[in-house]
Amino acid sequence: MGLVRCQISISLDGFVAGPDQSVADPIGVGGMRLHEWVFQTASWRAMHGQDGGERSADDRVVEQAFGAIGAHVMGRNMFGGGSGPWDERWRGWWGEDPPFHAPVFVLTHHERAPLPMQGGTTFTFVTDGLESALEQARAAAGERDVAVAGGASTVRQALAAGALDELQLHIVPVILGRGERIFDDVGDPVLEPVEVVASTGVTHVRYRIAR
Amino acid sequence: MGLVRCQISISLDGFVAGPDQSVADPIGVGGMRLHEWVFQTASWRAMHGQDGGERSADDRVVEQAFGAIGAHVMGRNMFGGGSGPWDERWRGWWGEDPPFHAPVFVLTHHERAPLPMQGGTTFTFVTDGLESALEQARAAAGERDVAVAGGASTVRQALAAGALDELQLHIVPVILGRGERIFDDVGDPVLEPVEVVASTGVTHVRYRIAR
Repeated sequence: MGLVRCQISISLDGFVAGPDQSVADPIGVGGMRLHEWVFQTASWRAMHGQDGGERSADDRVVEQAFGAIGAHVMGRNMFGGGSGPWDERWRGWWGEDPPFHAPVFVLTHHERAPLPMQGGTTFTFVTDGLESALEQARAAAGERDVAVAGGASTVRQALAAGALDELQLHIVPVILGRGERIFDDVGDPVLEPVEVVASTGVTHVRYRIAR
Repeated sequence: MGLVRCQISISLDGFVAGPDQSVADPIGVGGMRLHEWVFQTASWRAMHGQDGGERSADDRVVEQAFGAIGAHVMGRNMFGGGSGPWDERWRGWWGEDPPFHAPVFVLTHHERAPLPMQGGTTFTFVTDGLESALEQARAAAGERDVAVAGGASTVRQALAAGALDELQLHIVPVILGRGERIFDDVGDPVLEPVEVVASTGVTHVRYRIAR
């Protein structure tokens, strides 16, 4: 069976998103600064149907992070569309061919029929909690890994539940000042750094988490 | 002229000390977990007059961090002895031969005569603020570097004042949950990672800070 992994960009002051998230600022004010590095990489661009990009240390990290993923779990905030009952016109931030190319299990309090998209992505809406979503994702992923995609609250839940085998932090040298943290109230998990990749801009540290 | 540098151990959740600092817990509850790695190193042990220790990647980081230091600046909390007017029986945490072997400028609101110790350390008490302490430290260090030694509040002040040329974080994979942070209210400095050293336990990232 595969691993349950999370990889996430984090500011020096520990934020994975800025404050005041909205449709205009989906990752919060300033939050996009955490992701500029990834937009430059050839692997990210290819996942999003774009040509070009750099074949850099960052790129190899992205390739490795997504290469073995068989299913994704994400929170309602990351899927977007506001809170409360669904407006079914909302089909995610990513257009008709989302970059996941695999089953995606979306945590929500509100039922909704599965949403098959182009390119192998199907959004399945899970109303009975993280554990159920992970179980469904594991079954869908088979031998491959499950990615806990975010956002902050979902990563916190997964850490607190001891559900992650690996956490990879992309440490971006910006200071956001405010925003969403992932390590609040997660207890005291035992982490071991197993791989460090330094690029000119970002330090990527992959931690194994003891179960 | 040398650089103004700070190197500090930090938890994954961004704490450089635990909560509830006291004489029994000088780095706060759990804070010592941030420093276990350094106690193993041969360089740290030699600075503290002890034999043995490991010649590891961590050790080379310690050697490099302290090798070029000509003077230190620290906050009153790091020197210890409680708050308010001085009890002059308090001569620091480190015994009669402290590990600094250089002038140390201690920020305080309360005047006190300089305190020469064994091994080249003299504690000089500075009552007119960080800028004055840094100026005196620079003059004392000559061509060598000035270390901003801590604690959290002094590092925050130095970051907010744009007084640091380099910040080296020793990222320790523990989650403290509560404690003292260094990046709150420091503005938006521009940092660039210039060296990353990975050991089996700790990830050391040295940042250059644009002035």
